[in-house]
Amino acid sequence: MSENLVISVDAMGGDNSPRVVIEGINIATKRNPDLRFLLFGDEGQIMPLLQQYPKVAKVSKVIHTTERVKNEDKPSQVIRNRNTSMYMAIEAVRSGRAQAIVSAGNTGALMAISKMVLKTIHGIHRPAICTIMPHIDGKFVMLDLGANTECDEINLAEFAIMGNIFAKHALEIKSPRVALLNIGAEEMKGKEEIHHALRILRNPQLDINCTGYVEPHDISNGVADVIVADGFTGNVALKTIEGTAKFVVKMIKKSVKRSILAKLGLPFMLGVVSKIKRSMDPRNYNGAMLVGLNGLTVKSHGGTDAFGYSVAIDNAAKLVRQNFVATIRQEIEKVDLDELNQESIYEGYYL
Amino acid sequence: MSENLVISVDAMGGDNSPRVVIEGINIATKRNPDLRFLLFGDEGQIMPLLQQYPKVAKVSKVIHTTERVKNEDKPSQVIRNRNTSMYMAIEAVRSGRAQAIVSAGNTGALMAISKMVLKTIHGIHRPAICTIMPHIDGKFVMLDLGANTECDEINLAEFAIMGNIFAKHALEIKSPRVALLNIGAEEMKGKEEIHHALRILRNPQLDINCTGYVEPHDISNGVADVIVADGFTGNVALKTIEGTAKFVVKMIKKSVKRSILAKLGLPFMLGVVSKIKRSMDPRNYNGAMLVGLNGLTVKSHGGTDAFGYSVAIDNAAKLVRQNFVATIRQEIEKVDLDELNQESIYEGYYL
Repeated sequence: MSENLVISVDAMGGDNSPRVVIEGINIATKRNPDLRFLLFGDEGQIMPLLQQYPKVAKVSKVIHTTERVKNEDKPSQVIRNRNTSMYMAIEAVRSGRAQAIVSAGNTGALMAISKMVLKTIHGIHRPAICTIMPHIDGKFVMLDLGANTECDEINLAEFAIMGNIFAKHALEIKSPRVALLNIGAEEMKGKEEIHHALRILRNPQLDINCTGYVEPHDISNGVADVIVADGFTGNVALKTIEGTAKFVVKMIKKSVKRSILAKLGLPFMLGVVSKIKRSMDPRNYNGAMLVGLNGLTVKSHGGTDAFGYSVAIDNAAKLVRQNFVATIRQEIEKVDLDELNQESIYEGYYL
Repeated sequence: MSENLVISVDAMGGDNSPRVVIEGINIATKRNPDLRFLLFGDEGQIMPLLQQYPKVAKVSKVIHTTERVKNEDKPSQVIRNRNTSMYMAIEAVRSGRAQAIVSAGNTGALMAISKMVLKTIHGIHRPAICTIMPHIDGKFVMLDLGANTECDEINLAEFAIMGNIFAKHALEIKSPRVALLNIGAEEMKGKEEIHHALRILRNPQLDINCTGYVEPHDISNGVADVIVADGFTGNVALKTIEGTAKFVVKMIKKSVKRSILAKLGLPFMLGVVSKIKRSMDPRNYNGAMLVGLNGLTVKSHGGTDAFGYSVAIDNAAKLVRQNFVATIRQEIEKVDLDELNQESIYEGYYL
């Protein structure tokens, strides 16, 4: 397994583990024949599945674990338990046996253990959760999605730097448009830390194409490739988008159900409906990255299916191939954000 | 005009003022023949419109003003200018000549002038912006939508009390389900001030049907009648809902345009489309209330049309008839939130 890319997998994380995990790997290996897997989990459950999926068995090594992190476990409870499938899968990245870890388990625990085991990249104050989402004619990156409830300007600027690199790698955009989520497009509206972060990001030393603020109603309009927010606000925006999209679809279904005429027209619409379903299918965007750590942790949605899980693996593999973590390390080494922040404060005095 | 309900109107506020304002009053008077209006604005522009709408002329008195608050004006600039149509319209409520003021002008200025002129109700620390929105099978109330970027637990508890009364009055719900917007439904997730606010709201002295936290993806699911957030988060949620609803509709339109089959089916769908448009029409929800002041200020959307403006007037009239402001005053007099907060902190020690 030496020349191949190795992904460490928490086979016990997620709602239908380990079945969905093994089936997801089965799909992902078709697209990524060079991948090898370390499967951490209960042998008794995994082995019968590997018999069903011999292709997965061929590229995987099972490491038996007796414990697992449950959804209701508090991060503080599980962080010291080195025997869980999640902990051991993360540890495999730290020790160099794998280049990335994928888990569909408890997000809080995954972040806490990843932080403790992999450690934050030197120069980064706080790691963030980052994901890819659809906008009206493409995709964009949003972070932080919930790792940090309260953030200062330095945190926000670091998220912007990491999001910028993430968009270059994952979306293959040369010069991503980076914007801070804020209420009101005017310079002085919203929160003070966001104003300060904007001043830092506009420092030419950073070489970031920072376009200013993006208002929440423009998130899905494709005006920015990277949208930066504190974890509370980012999580609210993400979940409000998901909830509203479902709400609108429900409203439409409800109205169609009540109309005989609309029901007659339904066969004409089926192609469009399935196309929209496909383009907005959350499985296509599965896999949130924990960025800012010395190693790549990818969080799959807990309730996803095999296809969704395979997308999370794809994303992990892609970022490893592009040396994502090393690029962040290099970029963050070049700048001293605290200094840039001081500079922008001094400049403020002379204005 | 003594026995009638008088509404003071900033005739110069909004994108197409004063035309939309006068036309909006024309629609509203049909539904509310008892309303009388004080129109603050430029006579030269208002008088020709009143000739076009004699019914409006009959129920209105024009007070000529030479200045107006512009959209780009900063609240700090306009707050001392007593000659603007906005200032004078608000002043008419303070002096008792009108029972409510409606403006489609600059929200920040409207809040700042209202606060200075009408003053905050004794016992309320900060007024909030509140609106009615659609959910899957009804309507709900959300606040604060942007008046207060940072809020503590007392502010949030006050918003909940005011939102509770607002839902009783405006939505005619006997015991509104009041929930705090938070990420994660578990007690300890999200922000600390939200946890503290929950403890205050669960104090039986308050007599509020507080159901706990609501997650952003459930906002539109009808799980709460009143959703409480700080102004930054509330504004992000509101604008994300608006943006996402438009995004989904755009995606559908785009797909239908590209499909010949779907175009053929379109005539069957027109009834449903117009029905959905109607039920989600933002004009039906026009009119955000500035709550917590000694007087009722209603903010119409700046870009609304005459129908939308008439809805804002309806909302103002309804709340005045129900003695909304007096009810808040009575309810807030009954409780000492600082004391309840202390109590909940002490209780915390014994747990």
